[in-house]
Amino acid sequence: MKTVPYQPEMSSASQCPIHLVTAWDECGQAHAVQIAGELPLTLVLNEQEVVTLMTLGSYPEALALGYLRNQNLINELTEVKAIQVHWETATVVVTTFAKNIRESGTITSSCGQGAVLSVQALKEIHLVPMKLEQSLIYTLLQRLAQRHDIHSKAGGVHGCALCQGEEILTLVEDVGRHNAVDTVAGLMWLQGWSGDNKIFYTTGRLTSEIVMKVAHLGIPILISRSGVTYKGVEIAKQVNMTLLAHVKGQHFFIFHGKQWLIFDQPNAS
Amino acid sequence: MKTVPYQPEMSSASQCPIHLVTAWDECGQAHAVQIAGELPLTLVLNEQEVVTLMTLGSYPEALALGYLRNQNLINELTEVKAIQVHWETATVVVTTFAKNIRESGTITSSCGQGAVLSVQALKEIHLVPMKLEQSLIYTLLQRLAQRHDIHSKAGGVHGCALCQGEEILTLVEDVGRHNAVDTVAGLMWLQGWSGDNKIFYTTGRLTSEIVMKVAHLGIPILISRSGVTYKGVEIAKQVNMTLLAHVKGQHFFIFHGKQWLIFDQPNAS
Repeated sequence: MKTVPYQPEMSSASQCPIHLVTAWDECGQAHAVQIAGELPLTLVLNEQEVVTLMTLGSYPEALALGYLRNQNLINELTEVKAIQVHWETATVVVTTFAKNIRESGTITSSCGQGAVLSVQALKEIHLVPMKLEQSLIYTLLQRLAQRHDIHSKAGGVHGCALCQGEEILTLVEDVGRHNAVDTVAGLMWLQGWSGDNKIFYTTGRLTSEIVMKVAHLGIPILISRSGVTYKGVEIAKQVNMTLLAHVKGQHFFIFHGKQWLIFDQPNAS
Repeated sequence: MKTVPYQPEMSSASQCPIHLVTAWDECGQAHAVQIAGELPLTLVLNEQEVVTLMTLGSYPEALALGYLRNQNLINELTEVKAIQVHWETATVVVTTFAKNIRESGTITSSCGQGAVLSVQALKEIHLVPMKLEQSLIYTLLQRLAQRHDIHSKAGGVHGCALCQGEEILTLVEDVGRHNAVDTVAGLMWLQGWSGDNKIFYTTGRLTSEIVMKVAHLGIPILISRSGVTYKGVEIAKQVNMTLLAHVKGQHFFIFHGKQWLIFDQPNAS
């Protein structure tokens, strides 16, 4: 039986703007092209302004929650009293029961800018490896391709998915790699999903910060459509994460955790 | 005659680590795969720690300078006395002549996280449009493809180029979209390149922050291999920037500035 986790008071202010604009192709032909929206959303924790996120707006409450989770500003969902999005003022206000939340001075930015590598925090992470069938990778890729809704319509977004076996628990798209990961982190708390037994898929590159965030979520398998940096591989080795990059169609490279991969469909390509 | 601009005292600490690691493909075959390095570099402005950037390390001095330029923390190159990179402590120290540099409180992060849209600053930008031949786009794409060195070898990086006519003035690759743009901004000051008459090319998505940065650099044409967001298009219209996205092979979409595009090779595809 699924336990329903504690839920803070929350608005339900999901937006997912796709805009129709005119663009001209290389022959000068006009097209109605769908492009992704990008809304500013200022996160206020209690009475302190923390950051302004640029987001598609699909899951603003989960994004705010996951951002605070991944920045280690909130450690448990039960610390959170309420999450209220006000699009008219472009703010999301997160209220905690205790008011002595740590200062926001250590907030990391992202995308290769503003990393604070918490070496100590990483040392405490020991992921429990999980077997992974090659055929499962291909099944998930097919299912994900059918569901990359905004990307396929509008481009300009990154997608992240949390999978368990063949099931896609959630697929989140947003204008930045980090927003999508943070939103999944927020949804995991709200849905009561633990990280173990899960597979995390992203269309984005596996820089160190992304690998660290997924490790903090306790997820043992990370798969990317894009490439990986050396520090990303180093962190995966340190926390015992199975790491695959350049995963497209029937092709991939596994950079760590090969002993957990079952090559049950090697001639698929 | 080219004027040599003022040069601060600078280290020359370029690194460009490509690491050779073992990865296994979908058939279980081992490969020696080249992947990009990712080095932490903490930027210290005078005696104040500003941010830690994760970078490939190719142009650390220009990256630090361009970051401060794009954050409006430094307005003129001549304000800068010295830029010294110390890889042994993973720091870059930027020293200015005046010590009363604005506080770092308004520093934006990036990648959809931490935008501070300076509406006022945008209002002051009026780019001078420039004609753009379709055939020039194709020539530049061919030349750029030959020079995407790290990406073609190792993946996991974004590339940005500053072009003038058929000439690629510089091509910068880094682990994040923003780092590459910031590095070009730094190089523009150091080389004395103005923004007018230039074309900016990026492999990354045109979110609002990237369009704003290129607008601040005074560059009238922005071309991306990837997609664009609605706010990106809005800003391009506001500052009169010619904006092309999804530019690959012989295909593209032009979202603003069509009247400046000369369709001189419409049947190339």
